[in-house]
Amino acid sequence: MSRGGRRSSQAVTIQTVAERAGVSMMTVSNVLNNRRNVREQTREAVLEAVRELGYKPNLAARSLASAAAVRIGLLCGMGESGFLSSVLVGAVDESSERGAQLIIRRYTGHDVDAMLELVDELAQLGAGAMIAPPPFCEALSRRDLPIPMVGICSGDELSSTPTVRIDDRAAAKAMTAYLVSLGHRRIGFIRMDPALHAGRTRYEGYCEALAEAGIAIDQSIVAQGSYTFDSGLVAAQQLLSLPQRPTAIFAGNDDMAAAVVSLAHRMGMDIPGELSVAGFDDGPVAVKIWPRLTTIRQPVSAMSAEAMRHAVEIAQGAREADQEATYFDFELVIRDSTAPPKA
Amino acid sequence: MSRGGRRSSQAVTIQTVAERAGVSMMTVSNVLNNRRNVREQTREAVLEAVRELGYKPNLAARSLASAAAVRIGLLCGMGESGFLSSVLVGAVDESSERGAQLIIRRYTGHDVDAMLELVDELAQLGAGAMIAPPPFCEALSRRDLPIPMVGICSGDELSSTPTVRIDDRAAAKAMTAYLVSLGHRRIGFIRMDPALHAGRTRYEGYCEALAEAGIAIDQSIVAQGSYTFDSGLVAAQQLLSLPQRPTAIFAGNDDMAAAVVSLAHRMGMDIPGELSVAGFDDGPVAVKIWPRLTTIRQPVSAMSAEAMRHAVEIAQGAREADQEATYFDFELVIRDSTAPPKA
Repeated sequence: MSRGGRRSSQAVTIQTVAERAGVSMMTVSNVLNNRRNVREQTREAVLEAVRELGYKPNLAARSLASAAAVRIGLLCGMGESGFLSSVLVGAVDESSERGAQLIIRRYTGHDVDAMLELVDELAQLGAGAMIAPPPFCEALSRRDLPIPMVGICSGDELSSTPTVRIDDRAAAKAMTAYLVSLGHRRIGFIRMDPALHAGRTRYEGYCEALAEAGIAIDQSIVAQGSYTFDSGLVAAQQLLSLPQRPTAIFAGNDDMAAAVVSLAHRMGMDIPGELSVAGFDDGPVAVKIWPRLTTIRQPVSAMSAEAMRHAVEIAQGAREADQEATYFDFELVIRDSTAPPKA
Repeated sequence: MSRGGRRSSQAVTIQTVAERAGVSMMTVSNVLNNRRNVREQTREAVLEAVRELGYKPNLAARSLASAAAVRIGLLCGMGESGFLSSVLVGAVDESSERGAQLIIRRYTGHDVDAMLELVDELAQLGAGAMIAPPPFCEALSRRDLPIPMVGICSGDELSSTPTVRIDDRAAAKAMTAYLVSLGHRRIGFIRMDPALHAGRTRYEGYCEALAEAGIAIDQSIVAQGSYTFDSGLVAAQQLLSLPQRPTAIFAGNDDMAAAVVSLAHRMGMDIPGELSVAGFDDGPVAVKIWPRLTTIRQPVSAMSAEAMRHAVEIAQGAREADQEATYFDFELVIRDSTAPPKA
C-alpha cells in the first residue's frame, strides 16, 4: 500500500528509493544493511536509485547502528508497577533523542552478586555508563563497578554515586504535617522495605513532622511493609485491628496506600470519614481507586530522562561521575482520601 | 569494596582480572572495550592478567556488542499502563536470553505516517524485524514496511502479519455468558476505541453471547470508551444515569472497569450488590481496587516473549514472516466485583 505524498516537501526517504527502484521497502533496507541474499540485479537497481535520488540514510540512525555509538545500560526490576514504566519512558525517550543505545537488563531479586553480574554484562556489551533505580543504585553504590552509574529516585543521597532524586525526607514530612494540619494526632505509618533507603528517609520525615507538632511517636501504629500491595494489606490489617485505630494512615508508597483503602472498604469503613489515607509517588493507581489518593508526586519520567542525560555525558567524557545529587521538586497532591478526623 | 570470593567455583571474571592487575574493574572494562585513555603500562598489566588467567569475556555479550548482532525493534506507546510494562518484560527477557539487541521506539499518537517514520528508523538502525502491540501492529499491518513485523495482542488476526494473541471474541463471549449465568439480563457494555480491532471483536463476543441467550442487544446500554480510565468515567456516567440502569457492566478493559467501580462508589452504589462490573486484561489495577475485578486474563509477558522469539527467528532467516496467528489461552478470573443481580 502506498504512502503516496506523505513527505512531498521533505527529504528523500527509503520509500522514495523503493518506488524508484521498483522494489519493496524491505528490499531497500536489505540492500542498505547488507542483509540476506538480494539478487545482484536488484541490488544494483536499488543502489542506482540511491545515487540518482541522493538518498542519505538518517545519519543519527547510521551512527547509532555502528558499534561506536554511546551505549547506556539500564538495570531495572520492571514488574508491573507504574513507577518502572515511568523510568522506562524517560530512559527510552532521552536515549533516542541523544542517539544513544539503551541496553536494558532486568532482575527482580535482591542478590547483589547477581546484580553485579548484570553490570559486568552491560560493561561487556560496551555500555559506557548505566542508570538504575532502587534497589540497584542503593545496593551497588559502594561497590567497585566496571562502569559509572547514575541513580534514579534513590531514597537518599548516595556516596560515590550521582543521583537524580526528590528529597524523600522533606516530602514525607510535608505529608505528615498536612495530616496534622487537618487535625489528626493519631497518624499511622507503613514503612517501606528496610533494604530501601526510602524505608528510612520517609519514616524520618514522618517522625520529624510529628516531633515538630509535639506528638510522640507511637510504635504501635507504625507497621512494616515492603512496597507491594500485598505487604500493604498485611500492614493495614495490623493497624486497623488495633483497639484504638489511627484516624489517618500514611503509607510509604501508593500501592500500599491502595491496600489500606481496599481493606478499609472491606471492613465497611468510610474513607475519608472514618479514616484518612495518604500515599507516596502519584503512580497511575492513585487516581484509579476510590477515593482518589492524596499523595506525593515525584516526576519520575523527567527524573529518569535527566539521569540518562548525565549518563550519556559521563560516557562521552563530558562530565565526571561525581556523587552529586540533582534535586527535582516534589508536590503534595491533595485528593479525596484525606479529611479532618471525625469530632 | 571487594566482592571477595563470590564466584570461587566459577569462571574467571572481570573482577578477578582487576584484582590480578591491581586496577579497578572500570579500568579493565576500558581496556577490553578500547575506551578512553588508559596508560600503556596499565593497559599491558591488564592484558597480561587476561592472558595469565585465561579470561574470556562473555561470548554472547561480545557478539551482542558487535554490529552484526541480531537487532529487533519494539514500537510501543508505553504510557503508565500495566499492559505495556508486561509487553516490555517479555521483550527484554527474551531478547537478553537470545542474545538479540532490543531497540525500543516510543510513540503515543495515532498518526500512521509518524509510526512509519519510526519503522524506517528501526530499519536504518539495523533491526531485522520488529514486534508491536496495538495500535501499531493494527495500523501498520497492511503497509509496505522495510522490515517484517510480529503483532502482540492484536484484537483480531491481521492480514500479511503474524500475530501472537488470545481470541478476544471468544473471551468477551465467555465473560458475557458468565454474567448471563449469574442471572443478569440487562448487561451494559463499554466499547474500546473503534480504531483498535479489539473495539470490534470484544463487542462481537458480547453480542454473540447475548444472542445465544436470547437477549436482544439494547444500544442504549452500549457506551463508547477509548481505553483510558477517564474515558471509562464518561461512559460509566452515561450508563449509570439511565432511568433504568444495567445490573451489570462489562467494560472493554480493566482501566475502564475500574472507572465504573470508582463512579459507582461515588454514587453510593454497592458493588456487586447493586451493580456487577467486569473488565478485560487482568492488569495490575484489577486487584488493587475494591472490590477486586472479575476479568479476562491474557498472559501478556509470555505473549510478548513469544513474539520476540518469532521476530528473532525471522531476522535470522529461520522462519518466514507469514500471517499466522499464534494463540494463547485466556482465563476467566472470577473475583469480587460480580454477583447475581438483586431479586
